[in-house]
Amino acid sequence: MDEGHDETTAAAASDLIAPTPRTTLRRLAGRGSYDRAVVHAILDEALVCHVAFAREGQPFVVPMIYARDGDALYLHGSTGNRTLRALAAGAEACLTVTLIDGLVLARSAFHHSVNYRSVVLYGTGTEVTDEAEREQAIRALIEHVARGRWDDIRRPSGQEMLRTLVVRLPINEASAKLRSGPPLDDEDDYALPIWAGVVPLRLTAGAAEKDSRVAAGIDAPAYVARYSRPAPKP
Amino acid sequence: MDEGHDETTAAAASDLIAPTPRTTLRRLAGRGSYDRAVVHAILDEALVCHVAFAREGQPFVVPMIYARDGDALYLHGSTGNRTLRALAAGAEACLTVTLIDGLVLARSAFHHSVNYRSVVLYGTGTEVTDEAEREQAIRALIEHVARGRWDDIRRPSGQEMLRTLVVRLPINEASAKLRSGPPLDDEDDYALPIWAGVVPLRLTAGAAEKDSRVAAGIDAPAYVARYSRPAPKP
Repeated sequence: MDEGHDETTAAAASDLIAPTPRTTLRRLAGRGSYDRAVVHAILDEALVCHVAFAREGQPFVVPMIYARDGDALYLHGSTGNRTLRALAAGAEACLTVTLIDGLVLARSAFHHSVNYRSVVLYGTGTEVTDEAEREQAIRALIEHVARGRWDDIRRPSGQEMLRTLVVRLPINEASAKLRSGPPLDDEDDYALPIWAGVVPLRLTAGAAEKDSRVAAGIDAPAYVARYSRPAPKP
Repeated sequence: MDEGHDETTAAAASDLIAPTPRTTLRRLAGRGSYDRAVVHAILDEALVCHVAFAREGQPFVVPMIYARDGDALYLHGSTGNRTLRALAAGAEACLTVTLIDGLVLARSAFHHSVNYRSVVLYGTGTEVTDEAEREQAIRALIEHVARGRWDDIRRPSGQEMLRTLVVRLPINEASAKLRSGPPLDDEDDYALPIWAGVVPLRLTAGAAEKDSRVAAGIDAPAYVARYSRPAPKP
């Protein structure tokens, strides 16, 4: 998050994604991580990314469902989708994923912050044209949203695939940024009689709403009845 | 969301934000709304926006806390913050806010979707230099995160304000996009014995975690103990 001024957390590094000028963190660098496992875990837990591209100096940013498969990230949508068409045509992209973990309520206005885990990914996309990879990408997108769903549903028809554009971005220029833990106030402020702490936040599922045209006796599968992010491991 | 191909919802129009070439929805236009009250309600409920700007064809998009005050949207951060500096210098901005309301699980892969409410805002920012407006903006930012918090905390010092950059964006070129309701499958697919429906999703607060240095007897205020978004009306 770019709102803050305070302290840092970062995961231990192991398999690193090599930093580049675009991904080298300039501010709050101690919050950063190039650990591939950390980047992948954030990408796997979040549901939606925000994808930006620019045309003649004008930026555009839209929310999109995505899926990770190994070191590739897939986007899909209508063949008329402006963002996907720009990416398929080779536009420079910046893709950001943000998980909000909590509000950090400090004693001072200045040290208020947010606990979060985010990933920023730079690169250029490629339209996926191989039919096997296209179907694999659609499968990954469905499974990203609800793991287990792919085996239950009607697969895309040839006509539907013709109307679908799939774009792949390599996950080879990316970094994570993380904050966790309590507020960090100025030492003098700890004496103030002010409640301080963290309000944890999480995207949670409510009770599933069955479509009215589902036949009686067809119950919600486990991945619906006990939906959570990240999805339980298979 | 730019993932979908299916049906639409939109709020009734009343006080409209005039569409411009940038905000005129090209696809799924029936999901769009230029209703000022709809745009404001989404901005007030969401916590974080994604702000994009471009430099020499390279887009950048970062998550940021923001606040709405009337027809202005405020961002703040360190005076060293790259995004804020670009916006203060007049870079074209695109700012997107996305609320995820649910997963739409259809009988076919193709008609899977997401229920959401989003706002896209275009414009150029201005650095706020008037001290009264700067403090009002910081107040709005704190209150956006936790309504009621401002009255409880230590206000920013002069030194802290010197280290803070505040940028204002007008909310006069914006549109909302919304999807709600059940999946909409191809007629033939309704006969398939597949569970379909919506998994509602919501950013929810867990039990507040009091900082270990808060004195005994200082209890969490109501806006912490019963935190919700949107905040209850005052």
